[in-house]
Amino acid sequence: MRAVDLIAAKRDGREHDAGEIRFLVDGLLDGSVAPEQGAAWCMAVIFRGLADREIDALCAAMVGSGEVVDLLGAGIDAVDKHSTGGVGDKVTLALTPLVAACGVPVAKMSGRGLGHTGGTLDKLEAIPGYRIALTIPAFIEQVREVGCAVVAQTPELVPADALLYALRDVTATVPAPGLIATSVMSKKLAAGAAAMVLDVKVGDGAFCATVADARELARLMHGLGTRAGRRVVCEITRMDAPLGNTVGNALEVAEAFDVLRGAAPADLTAVVRSSAVTLLELSHLRLDRTEAERRVDEAVSSGSALATARRWIAAQGGDPRVVDAPWDVMERAPVVVAVRADRAGFVQRVGALAVGLAAMRLGAGRATKADAIDHAVGIVLAVHPGDEVAIGETLATIHARTAEAAAAAADELRAAIAIGGERVTPPPVLVERI
Amino acid sequence: MRAVDLIAAKRDGREHDAGEIRFLVDGLLDGSVAPEQGAAWCMAVIFRGLADREIDALCAAMVGSGEVVDLLGAGIDAVDKHSTGGVGDKVTLALTPLVAACGVPVAKMSGRGLGHTGGTLDKLEAIPGYRIALTIPAFIEQVREVGCAVVAQTPELVPADALLYALRDVTATVPAPGLIATSVMSKKLAAGAAAMVLDVKVGDGAFCATVADARELARLMHGLGTRAGRRVVCEITRMDAPLGNTVGNALEVAEAFDVLRGAAPADLTAVVRSSAVTLLELSHLRLDRTEAERRVDEAVSSGSALATARRWIAAQGGDPRVVDAPWDVMERAPVVVAVRADRAGFVQRVGALAVGLAAMRLGAGRATKADAIDHAVGIVLAVHPGDEVAIGETLATIHARTAEAAAAAADELRAAIAIGGERVTPPPVLVERI
Repeated sequence: MRAVDLIAAKRDGREHDAGEIRFLVDGLLDGSVAPEQGAAWCMAVIFRGLADREIDALCAAMVGSGEVVDLLGAGIDAVDKHSTGGVGDKVTLALTPLVAACGVPVAKMSGRGLGHTGGTLDKLEAIPGYRIALTIPAFIEQVREVGCAVVAQTPELVPADALLYALRDVTATVPAPGLIATSVMSKKLAAGAAAMVLDVKVGDGAFCATVADARELARLMHGLGTRAGRRVVCEITRMDAPLGNTVGNALEVAEAFDVLRGAAPADLTAVVRSSAVTLLELSHLRLDRTEAERRVDEAVSSGSALATARRWIAAQGGDPRVVDAPWDVMERAPVVVAVRADRAGFVQRVGALAVGLAAMRLGAGRATKADAIDHAVGIVLAVHPGDEVAIGETLATIHARTAEAAAAAADELRAAIAIGGERVTPPPVLVERI
Repeated sequence: MRAVDLIAAKRDGREHDAGEIRFLVDGLLDGSVAPEQGAAWCMAVIFRGLADREIDALCAAMVGSGEVVDLLGAGIDAVDKHSTGGVGDKVTLALTPLVAACGVPVAKMSGRGLGHTGGTLDKLEAIPGYRIALTIPAFIEQVREVGCAVVAQTPELVPADALLYALRDVTATVPAPGLIATSVMSKKLAAGAAAMVLDVKVGDGAFCATVADARELARLMHGLGTRAGRRVVCEITRMDAPLGNTVGNALEVAEAFDVLRGAAPADLTAVVRSSAVTLLELSHLRLDRTEAERRVDEAVSSGSALATARRWIAAQGGDPRVVDAPWDVMERAPVVVAVRADRAGFVQRVGALAVGLAAMRLGAGRATKADAIDHAVGIVLAVHPGDEVAIGETLATIHARTAEAAAAAADELRAAIAIGGERVTPPPVLVERI
């Protein structure tokens, strides 16, 4: 078998068998297939796509390239959650202790943010002392003892994905649905949870621009998970506006814990509750939706979700007071500036991409992978699409390192928040469940 | 400017400007654009193609990547010739001294063979002592003194082509017409001839399988040459059967010089004569076709073409007796075996690809670039398509290193030479002239 022949086959629209896919993946890892051959193959996949059987084989070869977390073997029927990424998406931080408080183990490996989207690891690192790097045995042990853990993916898991993603990143071959689906699902399968919710975001701040794109990605990931024996639900949710009020790492941590005390914005609360209920349905408890909703609401009203959050943060080395008094623990940005409405009317749009980029430029995110994060800075939105505002009313508050940075962000936010005369009813966040 | 953005642009079907093309070519050479980025771009070109303006820019950037031979600056208005490659294609060896004998300088840089097609350099190296490596000043000086020279391309010429071709070779991105045309024409433009004939072969033994493919490649190369100020004619010629009787390096050298004494097979003679006449039309002499034909025929009948061949070979270190008594100079293969007809009838087909592969396996060609050439071995065909044969008549003679190799080649030749009851009239070798 020669890599050049496999590239030619894909170039000409032919389908690979599982052995050919394994040859490519193993070869890229051991160097017998050159990076330029991997890149040419990925570009051929951009044009020719991958059949479901090829995607299954690719995912299996990627999972097989490294270690796997054997949660079921350790007697833990855990759940997991993934989001394709958005602006203000702190769902994992609230969902994890909420579901664990309902008696369902949550075992999650997370990533970092890039560009206008944030990453769960970056947010957690806003909590002083929080350790993102756990060994696989320590990860399993914490899920058993505390009921949940959120850690960085260990380098031993799916090394083929790290390699392939780095290659795709510099060769303009990221946007192939089959490659995106296998990248996500190989990590989910290796991380060991038996059930999972996949949040596929759609809109101007999301990877998928259209519902059709989101549906196709959801179909591919759902198929990969269920054919691999996992229980999977995909939720397509809107990302036209940021989720919740906050964008920026420490700000988002504080807001996420507000969900657990019933004090968070409605859109964020709705997504967290919906995903939590779905995970309880999918979990080893196999609850029906009504009972699942009751348990989730009870975990909030009883305070057990907050208690679980404290135990989780403490178990990973963070100060558990962050759950109740976040600003006793996390740094606040020194410059806080309000952005006010210069006309009255209805908020037509709060552009997720523009807000995300403004937060990134404040220092909350990375323009390139090498950039450092400023955990304190960010944006707190005071309005959502559909809200009526008066002249001079606060639209958002900017938390910045310097006055210059704040002024630049203020200009960006004024452009991002459109006010008009027309009354607006924003569509529900959840588009559909697959 | 970032390579990844240029790859994305080509992936999405956008056209590059000349600065972007130069950025890619220069970057590949200086390492700031990674090989995997070059490979992804080439695969995107396979699917999206290149516009004429992009091809011009690519060719110019490639020519600009190295030295150029300034023949006009040295006062030499020379001609050149290129073939896209075939089986038994020894045209350059006959054409070069023939045209030079008519008073037109011929300055040619050649390449090696791979797979079923031979290379002019390999054939010339069958002549003991022949030096293929000349410096650019020595090349120019020999063209001035002798009237012709055939050498290896120096590594200083178009280094971007060597790099890009090596990349395309392992990434299944060779068959993009725009990349093929720029690869050929960048070398022709850098080699300095003011006029040239490009022989685009079509058929089972050629790179182009259909006349439509050949026309497109001819159109691209013709455009590149004329827009760069050169006088160019493309000739599309058939390569369904080997050209002439011989396939194999020393055997082809001997046959090529037979053309100069009017003793070669009709198909080979026709192609050499046609190309020679076209070059005389294109040359600084600007002859009309009738006068050009008269001069070419006179160069053969007067013996001046043979005399020029002797001077040329001697000038490059070879033994000039090879022109008149080839087997006093070149090695003959030790095993010579005849392949005979096992039925009577008409020769329907002499498969160029199959004959070329049989010769390659005898050792006359290379399966991989690292293989060594056996200059003595090869095949002498005794029949051409359309010939009538009796049972037991010799179809071909195999010149082999061992009896085993000869037996294997005999089996391949019997399969390659189809004999049937139907009378066959092979089409003319020249399909069209552009």
